[in-house]
Amino acid sequence: MPPTDPQLQAKRHTLAHLLAAAVLEFHPDAKPTIGPAIDNGFYYDFEFSKPITEADLKDIEKKMRQLLPKWSAMSGKEVTVDEARTAFGTNKYKSELIDEIITKKEPITLYSADTFTDLCRGGHSDNPSKEIAPDSFRLTHLAGAYWRGNEKNTQLTRIYGLAFNTKKELDAYEVMMKEAEKRDHRKLGKELDIFDFDDDVGPGLPLWLPNGAAIIEELEKLAKETEFKGNYERVRTPHLAKESMYLTSGHLPYYEGSMFPPMEYEGGKYYLKSMNCPHHHKIFAARPKSYRDLPLRLAEYGTVYRHEKSGELFGLMRVRSMQMNDAHIYCTEEQFADEFRAVNEMYLHYFKIFGIDKYIMRFSTHDPKRLGDKYVNEPELWKKTEDMVRNVLVESKIPFIEIPNEAAFYGPKIDVQVWSAIGREFTLATNQVDFAQTRRFELEYVDKDGTRKTPLCIHRAPLGTHERFIGFLIEHYAGNLPLWLSPVQIKVIPIGDAHIEAAQKIHSTLRNSMIRSDIDLSNDGFGKKVRNAKNARIPYFIIIGDKDIAAGKVTLESRDHGQIGQMNSEEVVKKVEEEIRERK
Amino acid sequence: MPPTDPQLQAKRHTLAHLLAAAVLEFHPDAKPTIGPAIDNGFYYDFEFSKPITEADLKDIEKKMRQLLPKWSAMSGKEVTVDEARTAFGTNKYKSELIDEIITKKEPITLYSADTFTDLCRGGHSDNPSKEIAPDSFRLTHLAGAYWRGNEKNTQLTRIYGLAFNTKKELDAYEVMMKEAEKRDHRKLGKELDIFDFDDDVGPGLPLWLPNGAAIIEELEKLAKETEFKGNYERVRTPHLAKESMYLTSGHLPYYEGSMFPPMEYEGGKYYLKSMNCPHHHKIFAARPKSYRDLPLRLAEYGTVYRHEKSGELFGLMRVRSMQMNDAHIYCTEEQFADEFRAVNEMYLHYFKIFGIDKYIMRFSTHDPKRLGDKYVNEPELWKKTEDMVRNVLVESKIPFIEIPNEAAFYGPKIDVQVWSAIGREFTLATNQVDFAQTRRFELEYVDKDGTRKTPLCIHRAPLGTHERFIGFLIEHYAGNLPLWLSPVQIKVIPIGDAHIEAAQKIHSTLRNSMIRSDIDLSNDGFGKKVRNAKNARIPYFIIIGDKDIAAGKVTLESRDHGQIGQMNSEEVVKKVEEEIRERK
Repeated sequence: MPPTDPQLQAKRHTLAHLLAAAVLEFHPDAKPTIGPAIDNGFYYDFEFSKPITEADLKDIEKKMRQLLPKWSAMSGKEVTVDEARTAFGTNKYKSELIDEIITKKEPITLYSADTFTDLCRGGHSDNPSKEIAPDSFRLTHLAGAYWRGNEKNTQLTRIYGLAFNTKKELDAYEVMMKEAEKRDHRKLGKELDIFDFDDDVGPGLPLWLPNGAAIIEELEKLAKETEFKGNYERVRTPHLAKESMYLTSGHLPYYEGSMFPPMEYEGGKYYLKSMNCPHHHKIFAARPKSYRDLPLRLAEYGTVYRHEKSGELFGLMRVRSMQMNDAHIYCTEEQFADEFRAVNEMYLHYFKIFGIDKYIMRFSTHDPKRLGDKYVNEPELWKKTEDMVRNVLVESKIPFIEIPNEAAFYGPKIDVQVWSAIGREFTLATNQVDFAQTRRFELEYVDKDGTRKTPLCIHRAPLGTHERFIGFLIEHYAGNLPLWLSPVQIKVIPIGDAHIEAAQKIHSTLRNSMIRSDIDLSNDGFGKKVRNAKNARIPYFIIIGDKDIAAGKVTLESRDHGQIGQMNSEEVVKKVEEEIRERK
Repeated sequence: MPPTDPQLQAKRHTLAHLLAAAVLEFHPDAKPTIGPAIDNGFYYDFEFSKPITEADLKDIEKKMRQLLPKWSAMSGKEVTVDEARTAFGTNKYKSELIDEIITKKEPITLYSADTFTDLCRGGHSDNPSKEIAPDSFRLTHLAGAYWRGNEKNTQLTRIYGLAFNTKKELDAYEVMMKEAEKRDHRKLGKELDIFDFDDDVGPGLPLWLPNGAAIIEELEKLAKETEFKGNYERVRTPHLAKESMYLTSGHLPYYEGSMFPPMEYEGGKYYLKSMNCPHHHKIFAARPKSYRDLPLRLAEYGTVYRHEKSGELFGLMRVRSMQMNDAHIYCTEEQFADEFRAVNEMYLHYFKIFGIDKYIMRFSTHDPKRLGDKYVNEPELWKKTEDMVRNVLVESKIPFIEIPNEAAFYGPKIDVQVWSAIGREFTLATNQVDFAQTRRFELEYVDKDGTRKTPLCIHRAPLGTHERFIGFLIEHYAGNLPLWLSPVQIKVIPIGDAHIEAAQKIHSTLRNSMIRSDIDLSNDGFGKKVRNAKNARIPYFIIIGDKDIAAGKVTLESRDHGQIGQMNSEEVVKKVEEEIRERK
């Protein structure tokens, strides 16, 4: 969810009404149902007496522009049940909505502009004709939608529209979406042999092909190096555990719907892990701890398994197996601010490496009125940790927005939103404070004064899951992964058979330096070899022909910078090694 | 299983008879049941009318030595059922054994030496008094054992004895076992914080503590580097798959008893993987393959889950979750010998790194008479691959023994046995040829001539599982892991408070070079700090006191070589880095 501009949302909501008005001009017997604002515009669901097609959208859109100047005011009024029923006559959908409002004992309000009136809670532009630019919206497509989202109900026709503040914004959005389509991680993931799915393995369970695994290995190497320097310690835990552990953690029963079903084993139940925390808590508990052991930062690339409805699975973005570099930082209250700051610095470090310029942290806090109900009843700890988190965010000058009453049950939470190179938004990672789990697991340390205390725990996963992050990176880089992340880093291309020996020599020199070199020994012509290397988006390729052999050199070309020139093999290795090391 | 010396086994078998004879001298009413030779000696199970204790073993052993000179011949003869029944009178156990022989229509044979006669199939020393050295055996302990291993039957008393060719061998074995006890991986694993088990996670599912995970990471790094140089490609696959995949592979139903029970999910069954091969076959199949793609070497550190009876779980040696670096090499028949040779060379490379001087490969081949029944019916492929394997083994001068009729269903197999530094034997790894699975999965490549062919597949896992290999390494090194494998590589110890700053400086210099340095900032006295570092078997420690600070240096000490002397920090980093890189 983006930090929404309420005025823009009001315009979008207004446009949904305007859409309904325009539709009724052509189809007086159509039954409007509901029409909300959405992230990039609006939609409205109708029951039509005869089907419409996408070709009709042009006329409807034109009609909206014709009507708009007349919508100089939009106002609402509370009405009686009878007045409401009269206003919508035989429209059974509106009638059902009215019944619902009555049940909830809420006021019934109607909103009107020009000659069009709709049942609505409000939130529109006051003067649509002035506020909404006629070229700032566009109808895009039709879709089927069941009334109330229930497949047992009538199928309605949904008309979608895009809407922004200006034509410029609308155009930019359309350009971005067209670019996003070209960069679609499912399409590029297939073309670049990164991952695949197999019916016999199961939906939502990606098989990572060698190219994908190479990216994963590099991401893990980066995280392990970074965390080693941050004094994290790595652990390894199994992918399952007994029911009793998940009863302690509360995953059972509260999270059961998101877990895979149990295995009946040795008279009990075993569950696949959907999170790594309980296993890490067990590792914390495996040895007695003193204040000197804190902060203890346990990290693991664990694969977790979560149930997602098959209809909601989507490429790498929504999967059932997730490899994540989960870490849990156990610390005292005094250590908390420093640890939290270090975690944020790690985020920024990663953003820099991946060229993520735009990001925001959504800081979700508790609501004091819901303590003991929606939130664990620790008013002081809530206040203290939220204050600390807020201070660190302010001090670090990290852009953030604070969202009250959206914290996790056990502590304040930060969701990290980033924007890809083409401006599309992704939720990548979360960062949570936890003062309940450590208590449930009875984790303790002996403090300086000999008393036993419960540590705080920070859950963090700056790179999210491999699945989502690599999906993001594919779009972000349009498949042109930087050298250090590229599955094949350099392709050696002999022009003809006479150059194969020299090509093999440099290829093996590169591989001995742990550079992922590949050699093209196919019978393809030279032009095709180069095209293949380019299509595979390999960052460097080396061409070897007569001139190169005469000079005792090779010719280096770059995917991003074109021809670089002749070099000897030591120079190539040095250049490439340095670029890899610096993760440029 | 060791390559057994048949004469030694005959002696052990003879000693079981001698034990029974000695027991009957003291307890004429004891009922001998069965008494076989075992790996390190022999045992015999008796029904006693009143219990005996371990204190009695001394007298029985003495009696065996007294009887031995009279056992100058041992011979067998076939007898009638009546003669057999008469020989054992009211001994219902022998009576049951006789019934069984009758049912199987086998000859009934009795073996006698001096005055003692037993029902037996044979396989003894011809002249025990001459062949068996009186000081080459020893009775060790008693144990309860159910008749025929069935807990519904009478519990018998088992007397165990050790037996070797000479007293020297016997003594050496006892020294080894005492040493093995000191080096017990369960004991050291706990002391050195390497792993732990938790009841809520489940038996046989180790939690790897930071020290254990550090060892794992290093082993993986070694394997990944080695395999990169061997042109392996890494993949990642989920830990579960649908029933249909395991029906194709034949794991279901043939291997079901060794798998975890299924999860009922989305109207079907999902199973945890007990092997990585089927997933790798799916990766092979994910893209069309030509002869140019072969050999294709797919490697993965996959965690597999196998059911083991809870009574058979044993530390890290017998577990239910196994992390193994499985690789599958898909190749043509022409490529097979080279690929197999390269796999063997990788084994030898690893043996050298880990100082494994004694090893043997058990080469299990098929039996032509069992083709189509016990073995897949491909007589030519069996002959061809077995010949190739044998040739490679002979050429490479690798010690091996060939064992007919013990191959896997789908191809010849090699089990690798290694001996730890104290001479104890471990089965670490297997290496299998497979010409059935690739067919079951319909894996194909297009050959040069355009025809579709099925590749051969080599399964290999030279380092076995992390669990078993690390268990082996703990014993092998008695916990004194080499520098590169040590969880903490260097411990920095300031003598007093005045030296903390300098200590922290070198500690952070070391960590910035990715060396696993730790610093002791406890309030313990200097002596205790050093003792703690030594007990933790840390390979190096740095001591910093006044003299060091005055000299701008630190004092380096080695676990294995004592004091090394004063050095500046660059020298320490260089020395340690080099040793780590060389995996000395």
